[in-house]
Amino acid sequence: LSERAVILSIGYELLQGRVINTNATYISRKLSLLGYEVKAIISVGDNYNDIGKALDFAINTLGARIVITTGGLGPTHDDITADAIAKYFRKKLVLNKEAYEMIRSKYESAGMEMTESRVKMALLPEGSKPIPNSVGTAPGIHLRLELVELFALPGVPKEMEAMFEQYVEPILRARTGIQISEGYLEVMGVPESGIAPLIKAIAKKYPIYIKSHPQLHEIESPLVKVYIMATDKERSKARSLCLEACRDLENKLRTLKEAKIIRSCECS
Amino acid sequence: LSERAVILSIGYELLQGRVINTNATYISRKLSLLGYEVKAIISVGDNYNDIGKALDFAINTLGARIVITTGGLGPTHDDITADAIAKYFRKKLVLNKEAYEMIRSKYESAGMEMTESRVKMALLPEGSKPIPNSVGTAPGIHLRLELVELFALPGVPKEMEAMFEQYVEPILRARTGIQISEGYLEVMGVPESGIAPLIKAIAKKYPIYIKSHPQLHEIESPLVKVYIMATDKERSKARSLCLEACRDLENKLRTLKEAKIIRSCECS
Repeated sequence: LSERAVILSIGYELLQGRVINTNATYISRKLSLLGYEVKAIISVGDNYNDIGKALDFAINTLGARIVITTGGLGPTHDDITADAIAKYFRKKLVLNKEAYEMIRSKYESAGMEMTESRVKMALLPEGSKPIPNSVGTAPGIHLRLELVELFALPGVPKEMEAMFEQYVEPILRARTGIQISEGYLEVMGVPESGIAPLIKAIAKKYPIYIKSHPQLHEIESPLVKVYIMATDKERSKARSLCLEACRDLENKLRTLKEAKIIRSCECS
Repeated sequence: LSERAVILSIGYELLQGRVINTNATYISRKLSLLGYEVKAIISVGDNYNDIGKALDFAINTLGARIVITTGGLGPTHDDITADAIAKYFRKKLVLNKEAYEMIRSKYESAGMEMTESRVKMALLPEGSKPIPNSVGTAPGIHLRLELVELFALPGVPKEMEAMFEQYVEPILRARTGIQISEGYLEVMGVPESGIAPLIKAIAKKYPIYIKSHPQLHEIESPLVKVYIMATDKERSKARSLCLEACRDLENKLRTLKEAKIIRSCECS
């Protein structure tokens, strides 16, 4: 039986329809491939009561053992996620030295001082580990409790994705013992927007994670790297699936006359 | 004080990251503009228990008086939304004659017979009214209870949007007495993708609903109609806001040298 996970997206902008919740789509895809059963995706506002109620619903009603939150970790007064998590789990909010150091060094290298708003980002629930943010400034929160393991990530997609891949994913992978095979291919001559329909078809056909990364200029000199991740309990099966999906894409790309495959499929 | 609303998105595809939940973004934007407070957006799978738990959480924990669901109304065995709603509210699932007639006439005009799967779409919780589906086949469900008013809409965005605009929106508008002003402008010479950044900026700057509708061909003969909706308790204020946002867009469009405004801003 798979472990249950819930994604909790925090921010009024989601409830007012100002932002599409692509973060939840990304995380749910990753969690599913890592062998977790995503029971629910819940969006609530930056509000202590509602965050607490949603955590309670996720953990006690739906039985989530993994909770991943996004949003509300920044320096402003309405970024209350760390404090709301602390309150819900009856932990103190304390200055985390490791987090403080991460933040201080980032601002220092930009020639900027620590201010109260910047120190605020280092206040984590007691017992947490900060999750390094390689893209932005606010660290994430990793809180391991008796029943539940919680990861709080920022709402900025680029930061969230980098932190998920560098920190959260290895921990979740080790928990389930799921095996991952990663593959790449590179194609020149077709802009990313021209490859998009093929990638969409592959994403639909295979239970894999796939994403295109444009390397040069979209129109003048298009070079796109395509990343594929496949998972299975057995390493050999993960690898076969990765290769099958990757080669299927490669064959489809070869039918486009402008496309030149400059790096053929390889899966780890 | 605004009435509370919760959006419940139903479907495993959302929890597996196979689909981005743009329906929830659309509905939350509309509800906010209509004067409702969206307390949460919840996605769960096509699962009786989880739909029931989510309804209970929405109504009893978060105090929602309006619940809008999307997804799970189709003809297949895993489309269980109508039945799950019936079970949660302890209603029988009964053949709704009005719904049956809506479905039968659609298939008849396509020369197709009613089958068991098609009849299934006419089974609604006792006491419901079917919501006409002008785009597809499955009717929606309108269930008015003592505390809560529930609308169940299909997951296909075009069907959902049409049914929301034609049926749900007038009812919700009458409930709050909110006033709506709608405006249009039309521009030629610039493809929709070229206008998109300007529309995004206007959507960010004003508390309005804005959407572009390409009328002719994107590249060869671009003609785009832009729709704006503004709301307020006072009609005159709604109209001013609509005009302000629309004229701001019009002025921005006039700075594009290919753009030709063929219909200037008008707000109802």
